[in-house]
This record gives sequence, C-alpha cells and structure tokens, in this order.
Amino acid sequence: MTGYPSIIGEIIERLARLPGLGRRSAERIALFFLEADPSEVEALASAIARLRREVRHCSKCRNIATTDLCEICASPKRDKKRICVVEMPHDVSRIEDSEAYRGLYHVLLGKLSPDTGQSPEDLGINELLERIKQDGVEEVILATNPNMAGDATADYLTGILRAHGVKITRPARGLPAGSEIEFLRREALMDAFRNREVME
Amino acid sequence: MTGYPSIIGEIIERLARLPGLGRRSAERIALFFLEADPSEVEALASAIARLRREVRHCSKCRNIATTDLCEICASPKRDKKRICVVEMPHDVSRIEDSEAYRGLYHVLLGKLSPDTGQSPEDLGINELLERIKQDGVEEVILATNPNMAGDATADYLTGILRAHGVKITRPARGLPAGSEIEFLRREALMDAFRNREVME
Repeated sequence: MTGYPSIIGEIIERLARLPGLGRRSAERIALFFLEADPSEVEALASAIARLRREVRHCSKCRNIATTDLCEICASPKRDKKRICVVEMPHDVSRIEDSEAYRGLYHVLLGKLSPDTGQSPEDLGINELLERIKQDGVEEVILATNPNMAGDATADYLTGILRAHGVKITRPARGLPAGSEIEFLRREALMDAFRNREVME
Repeated sequence: MTGYPSIIGEIIERLARLPGLGRRSAERIALFFLEADPSEVEALASAIARLRREVRHCSKCRNIATTDLCEICASPKRDKKRICVVEMPHDVSRIEDSEAYRGLYHVLLGKLSPDTGQSPEDLGINELLERIKQDGVEEVILATNPNMAGDATADYLTGILRAHGVKITRPARGLPAGSEIEFLRREALMDAFRNREVME
C-alpha cells in the first residue's frame, strides 16, 4: 500500500489490528473516511475516544455499565433469585434480545483456558459465591458457550457450586431452532441425538 | 443488541455504517475497544479525527495528498509525459505497489455511472485536458476497472481524448498472472481467449 500520506498509513495500520479487519478492509474504511460526511467521521472518533471514560464493568455482575450497577442489576423488575453465568458481555446482549430470561447475570469476562491463561480468580468466582450467599440465590444457570472451553468452565463451576446448596442448570443442547440439519456441525447433531426426547 | 449502554450502541451504529462492516462485526470491534490498551484506542480516535484536517486532494491529479501537490506529482523522478487515468486513490496505491509504471496519474474519484449519478464534470475531465495541453503529455493510459462501468468510462474518455492528438492506451486484458483458470470469471476467460497471442 504505497503512495499514501502517513496519516492514512497510520489509520490503516491501527484499523487492521481490530478484530475481523484485514489490511484491505482497513484501507477501504480509511479511504471511506476521506469521502464521508466530516461530521459523521468526527462523531465516530469522538465516541471512540469517550468510550473508555464512560464505560466500566458493573460492580455486581461485571457486565458493561455506565454507572456502578448495570441496568440489569439496578432494575427492580428482574428475578434476583436466578443468576445466569455467561462468558462475555455480548452473550448478555444476545440472551436479552431473546427475552428468554428475566434473572440476573454473572459475566466471567473470559473462560478457563490454558490458551488465554485465565484463572478462576480472573473470572470473579469469589464474587459470584458471595452473591449466592448474600442474596439467597436459588438457581445458577451455566450459559457458557457450548464448546470445549465453555464446557470445561461449566464443569469447573459445577464442582465449586455443588458445595453451596444452589440449583445448577445448563441451557438445553440440541438442534438450533431455525437451522437446517444439512449445515449443522457434527457436534450439534451428536448432542441432539444424545438428548433426544420421547414423543408421547 | 439490547442491554448495552448508549455510548456502545452509538459506536456500533456508526461502525456498522462503514464499508464492509455489519452489525455483528461492529459490535465485536466496539467491545474490543473496551478491553484493548486505552492508549491504542485513543490514538486511533485521534488519527481518525485528524484525517480530514490533514488530507486533501492533489490540486493537479486529485490523488490524496497532505500538501498542495501529492508526492507523485511533486517528484522530479516521474515521467511527466505519461498520465495514467484511474478511478480511485486505492488504484494508484495498487499500481505503485506493482512498480509497473513511473508516470503521473489522473484520479477520476469515481466513474461514469447512472447509479452514482457522477457526471463528466465530477471526474475532473477538463483539468485532465488542460494538463495534456499544458504539459505536452504524449500518452494517456486508461486504467479504469475492467468491468462494465470502468469500460464505459474508458470509452467515453477515448472519445474525448481523440481530438487532443495524444496516444491513448489501456492495460492488457487476459488471464491474471498467478491465478488459476478454475477460479476465473467467465468474462476474464472471454477476454483472454479473444486477445490470445500467436506464439512464434
């Protein structure tokens, strides 16, 4: 990518480090900035610059928040006897979109993994146990990802939680609604057949 | 994408308007900003904000530049008797990468197209004709894209340039070096067979 002024080279370099962007897509965005409405571009730059100052993690569940407690923890409408454990904030967003759940969350901000080097302390497990005790929590739903690292994390949490007299559940595993069997992974089909239901 | 603070929603919205980014990839980048090194994120925001103040179009060839003339127009090493006409600044960058060409450019910043509503005036044709006359240009290479809109633009330019006594050329059309016939488009194969060379 020769022949660009250095400010454009810098933006391409920085954009190319973002997840999902290669150098070509970074170049396309940098050149788009040049032709786009300047006020739009300034607004994006300013929002990115403000982000880290305005956003923190919820002191209770570790979801992202702009105040000490996130909107979900602060809401009087949520079922406070249930905590759903997820890996990341985008998992909270997806579950909220589905409207399948009305309890609270605990966001691990990771998973147990030798790859990323995350340990139980990094995942806020002690804070989770404290909440279970203090708030009289009745059910913990382990909604880590249905893959190897997510399952290992759920197994580890199950071992710890058993000692705390709380009901432990996991979301069902099977064929995802709206999918086509033709395009499903072997693991999904294995789960679905293993957990097959008897029709009455 | 429920349950995010509004600043994150705003960044997702704005990122999702960039070329090549959907809402999911925009979300992934916004959440990445939250966990990334804050100084890196600030530096990206600042570079984007500075971009439009520091970058303009070259007053001669309309390539992107940080001074009145772009680096290529300002260089004493370029062959000033040749002008290569391209659609966009990224085309200049790609041709410069190839080192296939040492002349100057004219960047149309678009193409003739009923879709985008760009007219000959938008493409700086009068400025191009002025340069040909003033600088004694001998050859104009029409390197618009080898597709319908690019070819229509090149045909239109050919019609205009014929009256100006300048040699008009186009890059050769055929099988792209390094490709595999298995994966080439029909149009590319048609070009390659139509323009086939006789081996002596």
